Amino acid sequence: MNRAYNFNAGPSALPLAVLEKAQSELLNFNGTGMSVMELSHRSQAYDEVHNKAKQLLKEILRVPDSYDILFLQGGASLQFAMIPMNFLPQEKKAYFVLTGSWSEKALKEASKIGKTDVIASSKEANYTHIPYDFQTENLHDAAYLHITSNNTIFGTQWKKFPKTNIPLIADMSSDILSREINVEQFDLIYAGAQKNLGPSGVTVVIIRKDLLEKTNNYVPTILNYQTHANKNSLYNTPPTFAIYMLSLVLEWVQTEGGLLKIEQRNKEKAEIVYRAIDESEGFYKPHAHQDSRSNMNVTFTLPSKELTQQFLEKAKEQNLIGLNGHRSVGGCRASIYNAVPLEACEKLAQFMADFRKKY
Amino acid sequence: MNRAYNFNAGPSALPLAVLEKAQSELLNFNGTGMSVMELSHRSQAYDEVHNKAKQLLKEILRVPDSYDILFLQGGASLQFAMIPMNFLPQEKKAYFVLTGSWSEKALKEASKIGKTDVIASSKEANYTHIPYDFQTENLHDAAYLHITSNNTIFGTQWKKFPKTNIPLIADMSSDILSREINVEQFDLIYAGAQKNLGPSGVTVVIIRKDLLEKTNNYVPTILNYQTHANKNSLYNTPPTFAIYMLSLVLEWVQTEGGLLKIEQRNKEKAEIVYRAIDESEGFYKPHAHQDSRSNMNVTFTLPSKELTQQFLEKAKEQNLIGLNGHRSVGGCRASIYNAVPLEACEKLAQFMADFRKKY
Repeated sequence: MNRAYNFNAGPSALPLAVLEKAQSELLNFNGTGMSVMELSHRSQAYDEVHNKAKQLLKEILRVPDSYDILFLQGGASLQFAMIPMNFLPQEKKAYFVLTGSWSEKALKEASKIGKTDVIASSKEANYTHIPYDFQTENLHDAAYLHITSNNTIFGTQWKKFPKTNIPLIADMSSDILSREINVEQFDLIYAGAQKNLGPSGVTVVIIRKDLLEKTNNYVPTILNYQTHANKNSLYNTPPTFAIYMLSLVLEWVQTEGGLLKIEQRNKEKAEIVYRAIDESEGFYKPHAHQDSRSNMNVTFTLPSKELTQQFLEKAKEQNLIGLNGHRSVGGCRASIYNAVPLEACEKLAQFMADFRKKY
Repeated sequence: MNRAYNFNAGPSALPLAVLEKAQSELLNFNGTGMSVMELSHRSQAYDEVHNKAKQLLKEILRVPDSYDILFLQGGASLQFAMIPMNFLPQEKKAYFVLTGSWSEKALKEASKIGKTDVIASSKEANYTHIPYDFQTENLHDAAYLHITSNNTIFGTQWKKFPKTNIPLIADMSSDILSREINVEQFDLIYAGAQKNLGPSGVTVVIIRKDLLEKTNNYVPTILNYQTHANKNSLYNTPPTFAIYMLSLVLEWVQTEGGLLKIEQRNKEKAEIVYRAIDESEGFYKPHAHQDSRSNMNVTFTLPSKELTQQFLEKAKEQNLIGLNGHRSVGGCRASIYNAVPLEACEKLAQFMADFRKKY
């Protein structure tokens, strides 16, 4: 099998070992005579999958007992609405740090529901960096502060998170499970699965239990976080197969040596690609500033549109897939999530060097 | 492999041929060198899957051009909220026919959002039948009429749908694709996939385009049907694997000879199980009245709790799985969705006869 070097921004590469395991038991899960997709979500066989995913996530991210872990649907886009619906009362304000298109969308949805304000933004600079410098001491009307930990489109990533007394909410869709974090710095973390956690279709929410008590009871039952917390995310039928895949990915993280090992490898992988940019004498231009460079999405431009086009075509010929950049930045983007092997980054760096010499 | 006779109420049996196809290409979809789960939702390879699922559904259910087909997340439970959020203006009323727990839930959510009324109900009779007799001519304040086409818990199913001038909305989660329907009788049909359509995680919505124009623009973007219709259900990352499985299930329906064939077989299957009940001289008692018997979920009770327990245990020994009834009805339930083979129903009927003789 000629496996692609998959640099897709998400849905994206999954560990080959995970896919192989899923394949081997797709017709008969754990001796049940059924596919995992055919199990009742009320059966013991599925319950074990569900709780294993939850337990592994708790262990790997060292989630304290004072937090709940939820498996929801609808991706980050539904969280953009659920968060203000639940946690933005009329008399308060949601504050945002804008670091890219996804934070803008989160802001836009919150603005439909309540009062909002932008406390820091790098929009004027086309989101080339994380605006680290801002104060939150005097925001007495704050319901919460929202940040996006990694920005897929612009290729930037928070290197240290803000210390604040305001409840901190983070969209970690594109870098959860890529590095160690201190969960206690946050009141709510959410992430669509389709980068580091598994296939699309499940959304992980890690939420402080005392925040849960503040949900707005007027919101529809299914959009209230308490509904899901009270029922161990089994209030309605969960996306069972996606959660099963998540459990396999989490097992894989452990087999690979745990989160710190994954983080180190991610750094190494990113360095390989950034080095190819930095050593190109200006041929490849990085979009992100040094202090904000993402280890998940490496964004760069080439001297011309024509060269970019050629680069992408030639890359594809070498089985390097998914390198086209987003239109807001142009150029190229290499998404190098957990499941992208080091070898793929080396192959890309080599290709970048070769291409530069030729053109 | 000892494949289970799977009578789960959902998630439930999938066609073996579909699982085998998914397994065979799980590591390398269509020569891409990637799993279908690893494809970008913006790629051509995925686009073909997405549009094939849509096209096949359109063909098989004969959905007119005046309707849109959407692939959403969140199951029927999210639809319970989205429908009134979008289509229940303050000055109007949503009418409900109550035929079971799921219609009750739909009503409850709508009541959180606007004015509602129950136009017919068989609740007093513990939902043993569909209340076919009701009038809708004088409901001038109606926003819509909501029905549940099949009731998994109680084992009842609408045999003919109400003719009305009010927009008709149907939750078809548990019998869509099991029989021919005239889509034009409805303004909105919705269905969680996990019975006849595929694995859990995707929700199909078939919606009249002129109803789409009436969505409430104050609802969050992700909860507005127009958002998804305008972007071919690619506004945000869809549950790509679940949609892929849906496309395989739809192909299977065609291979099996189309919807009419499936409908005939479902009738035959149901008759086999109902006959085992009717010929049992009162040992097995059907829950549903004759004119409301579901061809998807056959519900019946035994003379005692002890016998029910024994029945379920002995059934399990014979690899007949998922026959326990819901607590609201007690007894047993055999869910015999499209993918449950005729053979499984014969096996069950034989087991029922044998068990009766012994006990």
